[in-house]
Amino acid sequence: MYTDYDVIIIGSGCAGLAAALYTSRAGLRTLILERETMGGELMNRQLIENYPGFAAGVEGPELGSAMLDQATSFGAEIEFGDVTGIKDKGEFKIVKTADQSRTCKGVIIASGAHPRKLGVPGEEEFAGRGVFYCATCDGPQYAGKAVVVAGAGDSGVTEGLYLERLGCTVTIVELLPQPKASQVLLDRANASPKIEIRCGTKIEAIVGDDSVSGVDIQDAATGAKDRLAVEGVLVRIGLIPNTEFVRDTLALTPAGQIPVNENMETAMAGVFAVGDVRQHSPMQMATAVGDGVTAAMALGRHIASL
Amino acid sequence: MYTDYDVIIIGSGCAGLAAALYTSRAGLRTLILERETMGGELMNRQLIENYPGFAAGVEGPELGSAMLDQATSFGAEIEFGDVTGIKDKGEFKIVKTADQSRTCKGVIIASGAHPRKLGVPGEEEFAGRGVFYCATCDGPQYAGKAVVVAGAGDSGVTEGLYLERLGCTVTIVELLPQPKASQVLLDRANASPKIEIRCGTKIEAIVGDDSVSGVDIQDAATGAKDRLAVEGVLVRIGLIPNTEFVRDTLALTPAGQIPVNENMETAMAGVFAVGDVRQHSPMQMATAVGDGVTAAMALGRHIASL
Repeated sequence: MYTDYDVIIIGSGCAGLAAALYTSRAGLRTLILERETMGGELMNRQLIENYPGFAAGVEGPELGSAMLDQATSFGAEIEFGDVTGIKDKGEFKIVKTADQSRTCKGVIIASGAHPRKLGVPGEEEFAGRGVFYCATCDGPQYAGKAVVVAGAGDSGVTEGLYLERLGCTVTIVELLPQPKASQVLLDRANASPKIEIRCGTKIEAIVGDDSVSGVDIQDAATGAKDRLAVEGVLVRIGLIPNTEFVRDTLALTPAGQIPVNENMETAMAGVFAVGDVRQHSPMQMATAVGDGVTAAMALGRHIASL
Repeated sequence: MYTDYDVIIIGSGCAGLAAALYTSRAGLRTLILERETMGGELMNRQLIENYPGFAAGVEGPELGSAMLDQATSFGAEIEFGDVTGIKDKGEFKIVKTADQSRTCKGVIIASGAHPRKLGVPGEEEFAGRGVFYCATCDGPQYAGKAVVVAGAGDSGVTEGLYLERLGCTVTIVELLPQPKASQVLLDRANASPKIEIRCGTKIEAIVGDDSVSGVDIQDAATGAKDRLAVEGVLVRIGLIPNTEFVRDTLALTPAGQIPVNENMETAMAGVFAVGDVRQHSPMQMATAVGDGVTAAMALGRHIASL
């Protein structure tokens, strides 16, 4: 049967663009719908050192533009559109935006996730100038410096240990009275003279001049205030997957991620989820790109079998 | 305990180099062992259109060199060495080459696979000039042309359908009396006026001048000979994973691939397999790179837990 497109991809970050490159190059009529920024999160990133293929690193917007051009050069179309729902009709799907409904044979959800923010003064102001959200991505810029990690869950402590290995002096600040990270991670952190975990402690503000110079904290029990002199603040208090539009359609994990199999297929045949939005994502550009390609190839087989 | 390296990576193709970038950048002492060509299969490839990030494509050797430089710039070492075995000692592993044994805390197997060759006259001579081994990689060069696909298994027929979508006229030649591909694929191929499947047919030679102009075939039953006028020959008669050195250590699939979980971990804790060598690999550069990163991150957690 005729559908408006063969494939609709939700999100134009690197996962979505990698998928679009493959589907359009394979001759499938492909539409990408983007809610905010064409090229996604990439367009906000500075020097990216860990995307394989660029010996001296690459600026986020340069890489994002290249991926956009590459996908569209094979015929993928891209439009602004905020997807509100996906409807399963068996051999075809309906993708709804605020003002339009389109049919297609397969959907790839690449809508990403956004880091949960602290919501304190200075956080927005110093984003990219001391405030960061991913140690693997941006940590090496802070090698050897004093940093605060906000959040003592598994990811906060893991990233704290990662920063310590880069020579950082790390203070992990947690609002809860006890850290939530697993014991093996806590044991390692506690064994390091360069890592301190302060629980029951609230971050009140991030301060600085051109870039971050300190973090104002308050003891939740005593009310005592203090200022930690640091050059970096890594915020790891959770990621919020952008999955609100499938909440009624797909079963999500407690964290809001979409479960997938090894082909990135969701519980709904013909609907795939890739990148930060899928369960167990390593949350890296290179893995998101790999996800997109994996899904595109599996979707090609799915469409061929219809 | 002290080991010679934290991580030893077997193979310097894109999967191994992506892993090395991540492990070395995370501060892990990393050695890459390469048996043949530094940079792996990449170095033999011409224009690569489907690695995300290069709008106009990128030459294989250029991309391979960039990946090599990128990994080594963070401290990864690389050496020639033909690995003959991996020994599991629990918290550490021993990686053996012909002349040396080295200890490490984790191993990433990225040794790739090589396509099974037809072994007929002309195959070597016309490699890259009509003879190719991957439709998704090189198919678009043959768009609209007549091609032979050698092999009527799932991959041969899938790639034949892919080529047909690119406008090719496709003759699928299979030595066996019946095609081994699944019925749904055969139904689709048989429904196309542009695809013909000839079973019980042997490819005797690939002929041409500067590039391929034809394929000499022989009917296995009658002995009748014929020449098909084609510009491309896609050989899809199987891939041989380079896993001989772990045959006694890890259980392999019947095809010789290494089973892994979603973190690319094998049955041996601390030993990972990535890229073409692992089970269910989509066999693409982008997915191999994603695998390498996934394994590197999981291996980092493994080492942190030791």
